Amino acid sequence: MSEPDAALLSLNTATVRTQWSLPQVVAGCLRHGIRGIAPWRDQVAAVGVKDAAARIRDAGLVVSGYCRGGLFPAIDRDGRRAALDDNKRAVDEALAIGARCLVILAGGLPKDRDGTIRSKDLAGAREMVRDGIGEVLEYARPAGMPLAIEPLHPMYAADRACVNTLAQANDLCDELGPGTGIAVDAYHVWWDPRLRQEIARAGAASPSRLLAYHISDWLVPTADLLNDRGMMGDGVIDLPLLRSWLEAAGYRGMHEVEIFSANHWWKRDPDEVLATCRARHRECA
Amino acid sequence: MSEPDAALLSLNTATVRTQWSLPQVVAGCLRHGIRGIAPWRDQVAAVGVKDAAARIRDAGLVVSGYCRGGLFPAIDRDGRRAALDDNKRAVDEALAIGARCLVILAGGLPKDRDGTIRSKDLAGAREMVRDGIGEVLEYARPAGMPLAIEPLHPMYAADRACVNTLAQANDLCDELGPGTGIAVDAYHVWWDPRLRQEIARAGAASPSRLLAYHISDWLVPTADLLNDRGMMGDGVIDLPLLRSWLEAAGYRGMHEVEIFSANHWWKRDPDEVLATCRARHRECA
Repeated sequence: MSEPDAALLSLNTATVRTQWSLPQVVAGCLRHGIRGIAPWRDQVAAVGVKDAAARIRDAGLVVSGYCRGGLFPAIDRDGRRAALDDNKRAVDEALAIGARCLVILAGGLPKDRDGTIRSKDLAGAREMVRDGIGEVLEYARPAGMPLAIEPLHPMYAADRACVNTLAQANDLCDELGPGTGIAVDAYHVWWDPRLRQEIARAGAASPSRLLAYHISDWLVPTADLLNDRGMMGDGVIDLPLLRSWLEAAGYRGMHEVEIFSANHWWKRDPDEVLATCRARHRECA
Repeated sequence: MSEPDAALLSLNTATVRTQWSLPQVVAGCLRHGIRGIAPWRDQVAAVGVKDAAARIRDAGLVVSGYCRGGLFPAIDRDGRRAALDDNKRAVDEALAIGARCLVILAGGLPKDRDGTIRSKDLAGAREMVRDGIGEVLEYARPAGMPLAIEPLHPMYAADRACVNTLAQANDLCDELGPGTGIAVDAYHVWWDPRLRQEIARAGAASPSRLLAYHISDWLVPTADLLNDRGMMGDGVIDLPLLRSWLEAAGYRGMHEVEIFSANHWWKRDPDEVLATCRARHRECA
């Protein structure tokens, strides 16, 4: 299998979130020859959207995605309306920084305003997600901001995202239509027996639904459900195989490294982290 | 929804594995009016199969399942042959203790003899699982011991089981034929968007593939991937809904409580654990 194009490497800012502010990440990407970036809203907010947009534009970085919208299910109407308003702001910010898509994290079971889960109605939560994306779409589609639905690993079904397979994301795109697409994150979907078929299905849609591709690795053992992702090559995911499936489905976008790693990469020198991302992208992805 | 029949409660011995030996579990079931049991091989081996079988028979307990066979993928032929031999012994033991089925845990990515994962070939591992079950079946089918394929949560795909959805288990049963069936564990499958349809599909097969039903609960947050399952009612799974789907699919078997809980239930007075299982089965399952 051929090496991935180094120009397609993008850095999700969460990968060095404990070490660097957004301006530092932008400067780091320039130093390490990384051509893409995917910022998180809190890191953008910390410097202001205008300043963030200017720095990214001046650095000539591609914004492979903006993290994140979504989190729709709520126990009452006010909660759902608050989510909708917040998603519209996220669309505005994504437009301001020139993101290729707004990443949509579904949200899990319905919560109250304190963030406590108040319902076990998973099917109902999935309907709230469909309705929520549909409402954001009315705002995002005319503005030209694609919504990239990101299926999350089933271990997050309760508290983070009740969209847990590519099949589900494809079904949502079927139902919601133009302006929706999919973010494929290797960490979340690598286990899925239908992965290859559903990637092909997403790529065969017109236009292609394959809006983003996130990479990291699944460690064995995994010490923590949330913040123990591995650097490419340190785990068990056959990343070159996944990439070949995406390429066969027509994907030509960035390869965005997104690693939450409380006990390892978040404790390292961030320049070492970026250098490792570059090397491992070339060798292991 | 109607309360579950208390006579259908079964105790998987792992639920009190740190506190009690198998004879103590059998005596505990009698004391608490629990009519079923599902022993693990190591707990049976500790007293000997004959003695274990006699105690269970004398107590009049239904053996809702025997844990466990499987773990097929191995990096070399010797490893796969060793797994096959071990599975035949598991079938013999399951017959000796009068189990209704032998629970089959697929195994994850191929390991070497030290238990280290040596391959990222997930599709290949899945073929090894299919072939392995097929070989055990040649031994188990004439002996009359049903093999209950248990899909495990996708978070165990790498190291424990690469059969991760009911659809996969149903497909395996389609391919392998009579003598195979499915163990539905709420903890492993509750998140699956296709759960209801695949339960119905398993029940519609002739004979029904629904050989066992395991219950516990998914805690939020989940502190550990392996040993942080919750007691029924302490988590987010809509267990009465799942039971209604199984009943609609014709399932009339036991409800087997299987809770791995290093920091909570494994530290409690086991009589309290059993009393809680009884109460929560009635109130929350």
